Amino acid sequence: MHFDTMDPQKIEQRSFEIIEQELKRDLDPIQKPVIKRVIHTTADFSYADTLCFSDQAVEKALAAIQNGVSIVTDTNMGKAGISKQTLAGFGGQVHCFMADEDVAGEAKRRGVTRAAVSMEKAAGLGEDFIFAIGNAPTALIRLRELIDEGRIHPRLVIGVPVGFVNVAEAKEYLMEADVPYIVARGRKGGSNVAAAICNALLYMCV
Amino acid sequence: MHFDTMDPQKIEQRSFEIIEQELKRDLDPIQKPVIKRVIHTTADFSYADTLCFSDQAVEKALAAIQNGVSIVTDTNMGKAGISKQTLAGFGGQVHCFMADEDVAGEAKRRGVTRAAVSMEKAAGLGEDFIFAIGNAPTALIRLRELIDEGRIHPRLVIGVPVGFVNVAEAKEYLMEADVPYIVARGRKGGSNVAAAICNALLYMCV
Repeated sequence: MHFDTMDPQKIEQRSFEIIEQELKRDLDPIQKPVIKRVIHTTADFSYADTLCFSDQAVEKALAAIQNGVSIVTDTNMGKAGISKQTLAGFGGQVHCFMADEDVAGEAKRRGVTRAAVSMEKAAGLGEDFIFAIGNAPTALIRLRELIDEGRIHPRLVIGVPVGFVNVAEAKEYLMEADVPYIVARGRKGGSNVAAAICNALLYMCV
Repeated sequence: MHFDTMDPQKIEQRSFEIIEQELKRDLDPIQKPVIKRVIHTTADFSYADTLCFSDQAVEKALAAIQNGVSIVTDTNMGKAGISKQTLAGFGGQVHCFMADEDVAGEAKRRGVTRAAVSMEKAAGLGEDFIFAIGNAPTALIRLRELIDEGRIHPRLVIGVPVGFVNVAEAKEYLMEADVPYIVARGRKGGSNVAAAICNALLYMCV
């Protein structure tokens, strides 16, 4: 059996060429690297239809990264997938508070999700973050509330949880907030999609 | 805005009910929990068509888990997503050799991928594993070669890399080997899908 060249960089380059060919449509040039990387990560072209960007979301994210912003994510899978080395080059780091003992304890005590408490923990740190939400719709709901209350000022919210219950609704709810966002409308998304969007933004800064 | 109950267990239960309703077809009862969990992880029903199981693949995997098999994966995202606690309950652990210095060094020296060298490292450990391949087609290609040479005896190969170059072909190549497999035919898959299949199998053992 014949396999094409195994050089990872050439494979990635060829993959993006195939995506470009099959997309067959004009995308906003500044959004395009994000959309293409999500398709590269999922082999799912439906993201070209469902990814929604608030006005100048990408420009604002790039500026934040170049200013050393850190990223808060709601899954350790997301954290594992984000290029921490590239982010560190700009002075940022990736946080995931989901497994923190204080978060777990407070979530249990109040009968809310750890994802919601994680967002409160981020709000308490007195620092503006990019949020990369790939799993928990409750993280988006709590973020919207904290934004409305003026207790948190995200530089960007990546809202791409996946699922069948509350997920599509939580994304719409977040998009009504006064915050820059990149959201995958509907049910689809995931930690891998969250990490892909972060990495697309990071690679645009290099 | 109204959101349904936030209890994570109830949300998961309701999600699986929705998947069951929308699937509208009869699946093999032993394969069904695997297929449903992949759909739960991706919100992508096309996996009901593309997931391929070798004869008694699930039964063999469950027996291996119950006998304390360990899992080798080709991504740290996959490792982050697999329920290591459940696996540890049976005596197994999750390995990812991709970032190991010896693997990186040898890959560079020989001009092959770290994924391919990772498979050789697993073969050298004198232990039978479940392989969960969510990223690198070269891992599947090298596994097929090692299986053909009798140097490795996987208890199961989960073959779900995602991508546009060599990916669909590498999956077909692996399926021709004499090995139990669960493969997502075509381009789709990913670390999240690999972890979801592992977790579905683990939860069937509990």
